[in-house]
Amino acid sequence: MPTPKKKLPSAAVSRADPKAASVRIPKKLYEARTNDLREALVQLQIDLKPQPYKILLIIAGVAGAGRGDVVNTLSGWLDPRGVETFSFHAQTDDERTRPFLWRFWRSLPPNGRIGIYAGSWYTETLSEEAKNKKDLATLDQDLARIRLFEKALVDSDTLIVKIWLNLDKVTQGRRFKALSADPLTAWRVTEEDRRHHRIYDRLERTALHILKSTHQPGATWTVIDAEDERARNLAIGDLILLRFAEHRTRIARLNTTRVAAKPDPRPKPLRLFGRRRLLGLPLDQDLSAEDYEEKRDKWLGRLNLAVRSAQKAGRSIVFVFEGWDAAGKGGAIRRLTSAIDARDFRVHAVAKPTDEEYSHHYLWRFWRHLPRDGQVTIFDRSWYGRVLVERLEGFCRPDEWRRAFAELNDFEKQLTDHGTIVIKFWMHISREEQLARFRSREVTAYKQHKINAEDWRNRRKWDAYEIAVGDMLALTETATAPWHLIPANNKRYARLQILRTACRQIEAILAT
Amino acid sequence: MPTPKKKLPSAAVSRADPKAASVRIPKKLYEARTNDLREALVQLQIDLKPQPYKILLIIAGVAGAGRGDVVNTLSGWLDPRGVETFSFHAQTDDERTRPFLWRFWRSLPPNGRIGIYAGSWYTETLSEEAKNKKDLATLDQDLARIRLFEKALVDSDTLIVKIWLNLDKVTQGRRFKALSADPLTAWRVTEEDRRHHRIYDRLERTALHILKSTHQPGATWTVIDAEDERARNLAIGDLILLRFAEHRTRIARLNTTRVAAKPDPRPKPLRLFGRRRLLGLPLDQDLSAEDYEEKRDKWLGRLNLAVRSAQKAGRSIVFVFEGWDAAGKGGAIRRLTSAIDARDFRVHAVAKPTDEEYSHHYLWRFWRHLPRDGQVTIFDRSWYGRVLVERLEGFCRPDEWRRAFAELNDFEKQLTDHGTIVIKFWMHISREEQLARFRSREVTAYKQHKINAEDWRNRRKWDAYEIAVGDMLALTETATAPWHLIPANNKRYARLQILRTACRQIEAILAT
Repeated sequence: MPTPKKKLPSAAVSRADPKAASVRIPKKLYEARTNDLREALVQLQIDLKPQPYKILLIIAGVAGAGRGDVVNTLSGWLDPRGVETFSFHAQTDDERTRPFLWRFWRSLPPNGRIGIYAGSWYTETLSEEAKNKKDLATLDQDLARIRLFEKALVDSDTLIVKIWLNLDKVTQGRRFKALSADPLTAWRVTEEDRRHHRIYDRLERTALHILKSTHQPGATWTVIDAEDERARNLAIGDLILLRFAEHRTRIARLNTTRVAAKPDPRPKPLRLFGRRRLLGLPLDQDLSAEDYEEKRDKWLGRLNLAVRSAQKAGRSIVFVFEGWDAAGKGGAIRRLTSAIDARDFRVHAVAKPTDEEYSHHYLWRFWRHLPRDGQVTIFDRSWYGRVLVERLEGFCRPDEWRRAFAELNDFEKQLTDHGTIVIKFWMHISREEQLARFRSREVTAYKQHKINAEDWRNRRKWDAYEIAVGDMLALTETATAPWHLIPANNKRYARLQILRTACRQIEAILAT
Repeated sequence: MPTPKKKLPSAAVSRADPKAASVRIPKKLYEARTNDLREALVQLQIDLKPQPYKILLIIAGVAGAGRGDVVNTLSGWLDPRGVETFSFHAQTDDERTRPFLWRFWRSLPPNGRIGIYAGSWYTETLSEEAKNKKDLATLDQDLARIRLFEKALVDSDTLIVKIWLNLDKVTQGRRFKALSADPLTAWRVTEEDRRHHRIYDRLERTALHILKSTHQPGATWTVIDAEDERARNLAIGDLILLRFAEHRTRIARLNTTRVAAKPDPRPKPLRLFGRRRLLGLPLDQDLSAEDYEEKRDKWLGRLNLAVRSAQKAGRSIVFVFEGWDAAGKGGAIRRLTSAIDARDFRVHAVAKPTDEEYSHHYLWRFWRHLPRDGQVTIFDRSWYGRVLVERLEGFCRPDEWRRAFAELNDFEKQLTDHGTIVIKFWMHISREEQLARFRSREVTAYKQHKINAEDWRNRRKWDAYEIAVGDMLALTETATAPWHLIPANNKRYARLQILRTACRQIEAILAT
């Protein structure tokens, strides 16, 4: 039987210094080395703390290789105030009723901290494979999803250190036997462990496939031999230090070429047809109050039916309301929600991020608010702020908002893949109509809170926003989450149009 | 049949101006009044925003009285950026596996904001009663719990406005009939609504009991007649304004008598026997390394069995580690966790609150981290910070930390009532031992991060802390969550003692 030591490492997967991993370390030496390591790791934490990024440590590997022990050892070496450890059980229903990565997004530590994952986004994939439940196509789909997830994190400067603890079949068997013999440690060997031992070879092939498929810059795998515990622990400690040093160099180098974030009053369009689509929209529809009321009631009833059918089908609905200031988002949302049972929807008005949110990936705060299956969430402004206000006001760097188009598409694809119905509106009014509404807000007492100096400032940037909106429409229009442009100079028409469009999209999706 | 208008209001429950509630309001008048109301409500939000408190609006009432409509109307009147609406479905398993109030604690809006509750902590209580599942004793237990919850919020200056929308049986029946007749609105009348209509009289008696039992200062109920929608809406708007005005006056008056938060270098003990218990603890035990290792392994195995038995019984475990700086909490926690499967525990090191946490009740950040049934959470420092560092450093006012003893007992009682095993340690060392450890930390490179100027400052306040710890021991020692004092000058002895104590407490609780 070939030993995995020879088989597992491939060109695609890096390996810690083999000398460090395969030699048995005597206790004295271990203690001396441990002291140095702890010192260096604590210094790492001090250096990490003020940084605008985090470290994720994925501890995966063969059963019996001591994932739990490693987590415990690392927790002992590190300052616990800067570390969080995670492991994942069978999904709760809160988790099951949301996209696969939801639970992992929620678990991410804030910037400046280390997250240690004893179980991770790999665990389930591996364990389902072990149960023979997955065909290769599904597995590869999962791995593609994981790659994108890690890429999004790496692109926002997260360091992901992925460790595969390896143990050959004979040693694994010996270890299980020793543990089982002692009644005090027998609990450590589960039924699942035993099965894994029996299908060792198949699991090894799968593991190698997973490792190769998810080995990417900023999130590389390192195979570490787990036969000698002391050697294993030292190799892990050394690896973390090495990866962190590399990471700092990489970030420093990146920062020399990165264009700083700054306001862009005259943005260059990336695509022209988005803005053309916007400008081509006829805005001045006519609709009498009677006509409106009659049609509204009809569509409200129909929308209610559609939403309830979606619920029955276990689908969640996400509404995205974007549009010019004073385009009537609030009013339209209220008409829409009047068709839905108050227990079934949440309106989430997107505001400035809290400091907790600010120390995470920019999508984290939206993951937080995703609805469960059967529920409706209405976002009053949304993740599109990244390519609108953040782009124009310089709240993020050019490379960040440029990358965002693809990230937003991927984010919405995760929703639609899960079964969520994503309905996106851009409420469009003319410059003149906005001016009239701003003025009316200033003279109507209960509307005055809706208008402030910032609105006037934004209005002066209309041309720039038109370009950003155009790019957004062009680059985030997808088959499963298309943009609906709503002419909104006429409020009644706009509200009706929104009811109608929402209704039709839900009905069409449920019909497929 | 007596009309509820006459029956419901009792001496214990206040009532909005009956003229406003019973008169039918013509549309013109309604619109004029609405404009004024909206203006005033938006002004309320502007005034509320910088305040260190929040408003909770509970919209409860008879089926068909329009709770959903009211929430929609209020959402329309208020600036959505300062409001969150909540409703609660059947519990998710995340919620079911934690104490009853967990989901409600998590839903609370931050300070400066308004939370509107279409469903609330009353909903389930009412609905279970409707299903005839609860006997009066259980109901009264629930109500007592709710009273304490609301009291804790009110004591931290939250304003709770509780509205009971009332509708007599005849009007309710008429309304259901009208809704059912139109296919577009028939969905609004659920099977549950119909049953509630049939048992109207019994539900009314229960409602009155609930209202009376939970009508308390700062969280009063107001019954509002819901027959005329416009009158109902105006009455609610007026009530919110009135309660907020009263609240501001009340807080202003309170603030004139409140003793400001300031450091207290020479605290007066509230109880003497706590400190005596602390000082009476023998500290210098002897334990050889061999003896320790042998006993440790025995107790680790036994602890592992105990934890797994607790898991099987669906019990969660909460460990609280408090103690002097350098008493050895970290090391003890690592020994403890080495007996538990890494997937089953989380260590939560309590740090300075984030700004999100700071805008909540001080217990909110601990509710966030409670384990699910079958899980273990280890708090490295805890909610006892309120009566230790916060008391002595003046991070809260004297009335706040004085009140905290009872609040902490109630908090832990909620845990133990739910089935959680709460194990609390105070790790005790002598002044001399602390000095020796501080010095050793200063010269050991990987320990230097553990010692800073603040530790030396705290050390100078030893006497003050001794008094605060004594009060804590005296006032938060309960039968279900007792304090274990751990002599910790000898690290080995302390670690062993912790394993032993934890084991015995778990075994004893499971045996009952």
